Amino acid sequence: MKVTVRGRRRQVRTVTFDRATNSVRLIEQRCLPHDFKIVAARDFQQTARAIADMVVRGAGAIGATAAYGLAQGARAFRGTDLKEFAAQVEVVFQTLAQARPTAVDPVNAMLGVRRELARGQTVAEQQALALAAAEAFANEDVRHCTEIGRHGARLIRNGMKVLTHCNAGGLAFVDIGTATAPLYAAAEQGKRFHVFCDETRPRSQGATLTAWELAQQNIPHHIIADNAAGQLMQRGEIDLVIVGSDRVLGRTGEVANKIGTYTKAVLAARHRIPFYVAIPLSTIDWTLRRGLDIPIEERHESEVLGAWGVVAQPEARAKKTKATRRVYVRVANPSSPARNPGFDVTPAELITGIITPAGIFKPQELWAQRRQLGWR
Amino acid sequence: MKVTVRGRRRQVRTVTFDRATNSVRLIEQRCLPHDFKIVAARDFQQTARAIADMVVRGAGAIGATAAYGLAQGARAFRGTDLKEFAAQVEVVFQTLAQARPTAVDPVNAMLGVRRELARGQTVAEQQALALAAAEAFANEDVRHCTEIGRHGARLIRNGMKVLTHCNAGGLAFVDIGTATAPLYAAAEQGKRFHVFCDETRPRSQGATLTAWELAQQNIPHHIIADNAAGQLMQRGEIDLVIVGSDRVLGRTGEVANKIGTYTKAVLAARHRIPFYVAIPLSTIDWTLRRGLDIPIEERHESEVLGAWGVVAQPEARAKKTKATRRVYVRVANPSSPARNPGFDVTPAELITGIITPAGIFKPQELWAQRRQLGWR
Repeated sequence: MKVTVRGRRRQVRTVTFDRATNSVRLIEQRCLPHDFKIVAARDFQQTARAIADMVVRGAGAIGATAAYGLAQGARAFRGTDLKEFAAQVEVVFQTLAQARPTAVDPVNAMLGVRRELARGQTVAEQQALALAAAEAFANEDVRHCTEIGRHGARLIRNGMKVLTHCNAGGLAFVDIGTATAPLYAAAEQGKRFHVFCDETRPRSQGATLTAWELAQQNIPHHIIADNAAGQLMQRGEIDLVIVGSDRVLGRTGEVANKIGTYTKAVLAARHRIPFYVAIPLSTIDWTLRRGLDIPIEERHESEVLGAWGVVAQPEARAKKTKATRRVYVRVANPSSPARNPGFDVTPAELITGIITPAGIFKPQELWAQRRQLGWR
Repeated sequence: MKVTVRGRRRQVRTVTFDRATNSVRLIEQRCLPHDFKIVAARDFQQTARAIADMVVRGAGAIGATAAYGLAQGARAFRGTDLKEFAAQVEVVFQTLAQARPTAVDPVNAMLGVRRELARGQTVAEQQALALAAAEAFANEDVRHCTEIGRHGARLIRNGMKVLTHCNAGGLAFVDIGTATAPLYAAAEQGKRFHVFCDETRPRSQGATLTAWELAQQNIPHHIIADNAAGQLMQRGEIDLVIVGSDRVLGRTGEVANKIGTYTKAVLAARHRIPFYVAIPLSTIDWTLRRGLDIPIEERHESEVLGAWGVVAQPEARAKKTKATRRVYVRVANPSSPARNPGFDVTPAELITGIITPAGIFKPQELWAQRRQLGWR
C-alpha cells in the first residue's frame, strides 16, 4: 500500500522482516486510523505478543507474521547442534501458535516454513531456508492478492459506486488485501469510481481501517452507517458490492464473514446488484458440509454497548495539536445486556461470484473446480 | 411509564403540566440513559427552548409540550383586555412553532388549543379553556397509545422474540409510545417474551432510549448491533418485528421511518417474519402520492463518524461512583467523510400490518378505510 507519512509518500507492507536486526516489522494497527506507526518485534516472544495483542490482525497478515516469527526464532539460535536447534524451533512454533489459539493461518504458515527448513543439512542452512520460506509465504500472499485485484478490477467500470463491509484490506494481509484488491487495481488502471464503506459495528473496522486505507490510496469514499446501505440501494446509489470472507464452504458456496454481510447480500439480491466475495484459496474449507455447522463466535457485549474513539482534549484543541487519547465510551443503557454474534453465513444463491487468485467462480461451481482451486 | 427513581417505583409521563407553578415538566431526555431527571420549564420561553434543545423529542411528546406551552403562555397573561391577550397568545404560538421549524406536531397541537381557547368569552375563560385543551391533547395521545397497545398485544404470544428499531416509545409520546405499546400491554397481561433492540446507529436511540424504557418496565431484552438482526432471523431467533414511523402514506401504505427500517423489513420478508408498524392516526399523510417524494433529511456527518457516551473517570472508578461525563468520541478515520441519510421508505408489500388506535390494517387498505382513519 502507498501511505503518506509525515508528508512523504511511501510503499509499505503490513508485515516485513529486517534481516540486519532479525526483527519482524508491523504496522501498529491498534493506533489506526488516528496514528500511523511501524513497530519492530525484536525476538519471537515479542512477535507472538504482537499477534496476541492484535498489533497485527487478519488471516494473511497473522500467517505471514507467524512465518517470519518462526524464521526469527530459528535465526536467533546460536550453535551447530541440529537436535538442540530442532528443540528451539519447536518452542518457537508452539509459542507463536498459542498467540491466537483459534486461528488456523499462523499454524498453516508455520507448517510450510518448517517443511522447507527440514531440507537443510546444517543449522545455518536450515536457518536460511526458514527465512526464505517465510519470505516466499509473504510474497505469495501479495501475489495472490494482486491476482484477485487483476480479476476483480474487470468488474469495476468508470462512474461505479461500490459498497464494502468490514476490512478485508491490505491491513488484513501482507499487502493489497482481498475485497480491496479490485478497488486498488482499478484505481491504478485510472478508473474513477466511488466507494461506500459500511461503518461495520460493533468494531467499526470499515469506518476505521478500510476508510483509512482508501484515504491513503486517494480513492473517493464515504463512510455510512450500516443502516444506510438499503436506502442507498433503493435510490440507485450502489452498483456493486465486494466483501471478504473468513471461510467459504467449497462444497456449498456458503460464505462466513463479519456480522452484517448476510444483510447486505439480501439487500443486493432484492435490488439486483452484483454481490462478490474476494478470497485467497486458503479461505476455502473443503470439509464442512453446511454453513449452519460453521461455529459463530459470540463476542463480548461491551463491543455493542459502547465504542472506542479519540476525544479531543481541551488542551490539545487550544494548542491545535492532534487529539489522540483513545477511550471507550459506554453508549447504551447501563442496565441492558447485549448479544454480539461476530459472523454470519450468506447462502450461495445470494452471491454473484467468488473472486479468487485463480479467477472468478460462481459459488456453486467451487466443488466442480476443486482441483484448480487447491483442494487436496 | 413506570420508572424506578432512587429505589422507588413511580408512574411518570414524558410531559406533564403543573398548575400551581404554571410549569411544563419534562423528562430530561438528553441525560438518558445514564441519568434520570425531570426538569421544569417555568415560562413559555423555557418550554420553547426545551423543544429546540431536544430536552424533549418525538412527535407526540413535542406536540403535547407545545400545547402545554401555549396554555402556559396564555395563563401568564395578567389583565382582562382580550385584544392584548390575543396578541400575547400569538407571540407564544410563534415562539413555540419556531422551536422546531420543520416539525408539524407542535403546530397541529397548538392549532387545536387555539381553536378551543377562542370559545371563551373572557381572558380567564380562554386561559382555562387553553389548559383544558392542552390536557385533552395529552390525554388523547395517551389514549391513542393505549389503544395501539390493546390491538398490538394480540400479536404477541408467550415465548416470542420481538425485534424493534429506534425509539417509538413512551419517551417519544406523552406515555406508552407506539412501537412499544404492544410490548407494554402484553407485559401487563402477564405474557412472557423477549425483545431485541437494534442499536440504531448513528444516533443509537435503540441502545439508549428503547433499552432504558424496556429495563424500566422489567421487560427482558438484549441490545444488538444493527448488523446482527439478519443473523438472528436466519437462526429462527426473531418471531415478530414492530417499529414506529414518522410518516405513513395513506394512498400507498409506504412507511417512512428511521434509517435501517427498510433493511429490517426486507430481511423479515425473506424470513416470513411478520413486520408491523405502530402509529397514531396523525402520522398518516393523505396527500403525498409516492414514497419517493418524501423528503429524506441528510443529517450531519459527525453522527456517523463518532459516538456519544459516558467515559468512566479514573477518580469515579476509584470511588465506585457513577460515571457520568458524556463525551463525543471520533471513531472513524480522521480524513474520511460520511453520508448520513436520516430516514428510509419501506414499501407496502413488505409490511404485514399497520397498528393504529382504530385497529390493525393492511397498508394497502388505508385508503379504502380513510374515513375511519381520520382522513379529511
